[in-house]
Amino acid sequence: MVNPDERLKSAGLELPPAVTPFGPYAPAVQTGTLLYLSGMLPTVGHDPKFLGRVGKELSIERGRAAAQAAALNALAVARRHLGSLDRITRTVRLGVYVAAAGDQVDLVKIADAASELLRDVLGADTLPVRLVFGVASLPLGTPVELEVIFEVSP
Amino acid sequence: MVNPDERLKSAGLELPPAVTPFGPYAPAVQTGTLLYLSGMLPTVGHDPKFLGRVGKELSIERGRAAAQAAALNALAVARRHLGSLDRITRTVRLGVYVAAAGDQVDLVKIADAASELLRDVLGADTLPVRLVFGVASLPLGTPVELEVIFEVSP
Amino acid sequence: MVNPDERLKSAGLELPPAVTPFGPYAPAVQTGTLLYLSGMLPTVGHDPKFLGRVGKELSIERGRAAAQAAALNALAVARRHLGSLDRITRTVRLGVYVAAAGDQVDLVKIADAASELLRDVLGADTLPVRLVFGVASLPLGTPVELEVIFEVSP
Repeated sequence: MVNPDERLKSAGLELPPAVTPFGPYAPAVQTGTLLYLSGMLPTVGHDPKFLGRVGKELSIERGRAAAQAAALNALAVARRHLGSLDRITRTVRLGVYVAAAGDQVDLVKIADAASELLRDVLGADTLPVRLVFGVASLPLGTPVELEVIFEVSP
Repeated sequence: MVNPDERLKSAGLELPPAVTPFGPYAPAVQTGTLLYLSGMLPTVGHDPKFLGRVGKELSIERGRAAAQAAALNALAVARRHLGSLDRITRTVRLGVYVAAAGDQVDLVKIADAASELLRDVLGADTLPVRLVFGVASLPLGTPVELEVIFEVSP
Repeated sequence: MVNPDERLKSAGLELPPAVTPFGPYAPAVQTGTLLYLSGMLPTVGHDPKFLGRVGKELSIERGRAAAQAAALNALAVARRHLGSLDRITRTVRLGVYVAAAGDQVDLVKIADAASELLRDVLGADTLPVRLVFGVASLPLGTPVELEVIFEVSP
């Protein structure tokens, strides 16, 4: 059986407190069996943990760490909304938007870091579709933003 | 009770005519209880009312006005498709894509202008998730594009 | 009756083999009656058929050809997942993300190439909503990425 909390523990990961909104929007909205999340940044609360562009201020490795931090924020928001990560039946869609310097940065490597974390916690049988591109800028000057849609049990 | 038309009136707002497509796509598509809208620009019909980049040709304040104009276009398209805004049970997702100059522009301020307008018309109990980023360019050279998914009653 | 395979044939089009993922994600995910596809690039398998930016290394015409190649990849992935394109009842949403040089490139012309191909294959009564913007960069250095959601029969 999928047990995300055990998987988190065995991976040595801990979810941060769920980020509260920066404006008049909701962190998560459920409609039917879909749970939409707001764009998730690599912040602790409202403070960016990572700043700058991948390939300029930040290495690929730091960009991957930022993607992992944003993925943990996504899980934290989902858990807060659902009560338990057990209610997630699958990840439907993962968007990975990267503030990269120039167009030579390997965006796939950044995206894989988020994909791998979600897979390790939620299971390899729940892989989502994925969308990846480089953006011109992100809120707060952060290097990566994730957008996640989960499918949840009623 | 939520009554968007009264709220529009009391806010001194009027919806423009619903924008028609620029190509072979639909302004709105309903599937189940979700109403997807095409990307909404700050145009009047097919004419851009705002041109340029926020932080270069346009101030933050003008960028906010552009976001409001695009939000009114979204409401106009929804009303045309649904017959009445009363059928909107909530906004599910708001995407705000900003053509900004450099990466020092406060994207959240632009996004808040769209969020506040939708909240003021549709009610504060219907806040959507939100996604915000800076893009390299937008159709027609406009400064902001909105993407909205509404949940509607059957 | 809509018969996408006949339409493909009469348009002289053939679907390529469905692209396999570049990482831990799925090419397509169905939830309820919605079929989400991963971002589709103008590749043959994992090899980019088009490289560079529209308006710099690539003309508008080549950008349109890239959008068509990505649209064929989307149809190929959908057919592989569904067994038959007949199960598509409509296209719900088409996202067109273009790596363009500067902000003078006519993004709508690129997007129209994808829209027209999907319309020609799936029928003009199934037009989706559309979102178009210019991005800073795309995976593999490709010029255009498509994101498609189909509505499918159960």
